[in-house]
Formats: sequence, structure tokens, C-alpha cells
Amino acid sequence: MSDPQEKVSSKDTEEVIMEATFRALSKHGYKDLRMRDIGDEMELTRQVIHYHFDGKYDLMSAFLEHIIEQYEGSVEVDGDADPRSELDARIDQCLFGPEFEEFTHWDRMKVYHELYTYAQNDGEHRKVFNEHYDRIRGSIVEVVEDGIEQGEFRDVNVDRMGQLITDVIHAARGRRISLGHEDAPEEARRAIDEFILDSLYADA
Amino acid sequence: MSDPQEKVSSKDTEEVIMEATFRALSKHGYKDLRMRDIGDEMELTRQVIHYHFDGKYDLMSAFLEHIIEQYEGSVEVDGDADPRSELDARIDQCLFGPEFEEFTHWDRMKVYHELYTYAQNDGEHRKVFNEHYDRIRGSIVEVVEDGIEQGEFRDVNVDRMGQLITDVIHAARGRRISLGHEDAPEEARRAIDEFILDSLYADA
Repeated sequence: MSDPQEKVSSKDTEEVIMEATFRALSKHGYKDLRMRDIGDEMELTRQVIHYHFDGKYDLMSAFLEHIIEQYEGSVEVDGDADPRSELDARIDQCLFGPEFEEFTHWDRMKVYHELYTYAQNDGEHRKVFNEHYDRIRGSIVEVVEDGIEQGEFRDVNVDRMGQLITDVIHAARGRRISLGHEDAPEEARRAIDEFILDSLYADA
Repeated sequence: MSDPQEKVSSKDTEEVIMEATFRALSKHGYKDLRMRDIGDEMELTRQVIHYHFDGKYDLMSAFLEHIIEQYEGSVEVDGDADPRSELDARIDQCLFGPEFEEFTHWDRMKVYHELYTYAQNDGEHRKVFNEHYDRIRGSIVEVVEDGIEQGEFRDVNVDRMGQLITDVIHAARGRRISLGHEDAPEEARRAIDEFILDSLYADA
């Protein structure tokens, strides 16, 4: 067998490993995952994984960053949208999308939520999740602030509002994954509209 | 060593095993927990565990039921309370309490949330969690219904309201555990008051 490093660039190789990791995780889950399971999911030799990553933990950290990047790279911000439309789009994005060719939003979120739970004992992953949480909440806070500035929303505690919406999104995704409530994201979306976002207009 | 079965009743023995399991889980986490770790945490011989439980999985299922029972046995319902006070008490109970002698609410919730995430691959645990979710949500729905009937709250979709509050509670607890946000439950409590419960009065 020829050296796989000659066939593909380092960036392509890492992409191939990430996709193999996705497939292996979907089959085996994180807890029982072995490096060889990932090797079984790709055409390159397994040595390539060890060349790029220093063990399972290092690979999983890279994989977590990979999911988050995919997630964030896909947020389309329309500069002309009014605050409510932009808020709606951001919430939908976190709850339902984005879609990619091979793996669905829920394939990604299963891994995301599993690693999230482990983060209690893992300083490095906890840091990654905290940064992601701050960015998601921050993006909601920003839109609410715009809305207040433009006089569309009443003057609320924006950090608390951002935290509340982020929490509801997270719980609804987790409930769909852990308890099998297929309608959890749709129901959460309706609850956010009826009971949370409506309160943005209460004194308007 | 004398037969430990002679020393304590079966019920007491199970209680001793549950407490040893708690201590072992706090030290090792669920993923890495071995039956011998639980044996190390109690004065009875390890054989007692195998006499009462058919392996780690059976023990964990019993342990999950044990946590939920402790949790629920402690809810005090004051028949005379007005709906809003009762709603507040139930939300506080889920977010902050109850306290027991040896283990805090957060010791219990750490295990609860870890097993919750695993439930995606575990039909039996998923069933237990679904039943618990239905009871928690149901207890909130009931109070909101009372409030509507008594004319204190406006007429909302009670199931959606119960689901929303249950989701916020779950996410805030999970965020404190996984991301280390110590103030998450208090902030969630304020957000529920300001942005969700206030909407119960909007048309009143």
C-alpha cells in the first residue's frame, strides 16, 4: 500500500477522518468508540489517524470543534432583516438546521449533547462548550439589543433573555435525542413564540 | 465474616447499597464505574450487591428509581396555597432542592443528567425518564389549570406552558453541571418570572 499522505492533502485527510468518525460514532456511540472503529469507516489506512491525532481524546476534541464550525459556518445573516425576523431565523437555525449532505442536524447534535454531558469532568471540552454557549447566547442578545434600539422591543434584561432562549433550545434538542420526543423542537418553537417572544412587546 | 443478610433487613441493605453507589458515582462517574468501586464504599461484603442486583445495569436502573423517589417524596403540596405560590414552590423544588443529609441536590442531579444523556440508547431508562418527565410536566400543568379555572391566569395552552417550564429547569440544571455556571438555576428562576410567568397575566 502506498503512503496515504501522498494521495491527499493534510486538510482533505482530516476531513476524511472527521467523516469516518461521524459514521463510527453513529454506530457505536462515544462511550464504546475505539480508534479501530473509525479506521473501519474509511478507505485510508488506520495509521493516518494516529499520524494526525494523539489518541481518542485528541481526536474527539478536534471532532467537537469540527461540528461547531459546521454549525456556525452555515448561519446566514441578512443585514436588512428586521430584528424579529433575524431572531426567528437564529432560533430556527439552532433548533432545526443546518442540513449537510451525509449527516443530519440530529446526527451532529447527538454527539454534541453526549460530549456536553461529559464536559462536567473535562476542563478542555468544558472550555469549548462555554465558548460556543457564549457565542450562541451572544448572537441572540445582539439581535434583541438591536430590536430595543430600533424601538421594536421593550427594554428587557437582554442577557437574561438570551440565556432563556438558549436554554429552551438546548433542552428541546436534548429531549428529542434522549427521550425520543420527535416534536420537541417544533413545540419549543411555538412555546418561545407564544410565551417568551410575545413578552418582548408587552409594554410597546 | 458472618452472613450480612443476618445483620440487616433486605430494605436496609438496599439503602446501604444505594448510598455506597452514590459515593462511588461521585468519585468515579458512571462511565468508569465498576461494581468493586461500590463495594469499596460500604462495610457489607461485596457479595451482597450481587445478591440484590443482577449486574451494573440492573443496579443503575434501581439507583435511578431511587433518586427519582427521593426527589418526588419530598414535594410538599399545600392544599391552601394560591396557584401562583404553588407554581413557584414546584419550580423552586425542581431547580434547587430538596436537600438530604449526605448528598446534595447537585450530587443527585449529576447522576440524573448523565443517565438522561445515555437514555438515547437505552429503552428501559428512557421509559423511566419519560415517566418522570410526564409527572413533572403534569404537576406544572395541573397548577396552571387551577389558576385558569380560578381566573388568576389567562387561558393558555397548558401543555405547552408545562413543557416550556420543564425544559428551562432541565437546561439550567444541566448548564450548571456541564458548564459550571453556578448561577444558572437562579438566573433561570428570574427569567421564568420575568419572561414566562408574567405572560400568564397578560390579558388578565
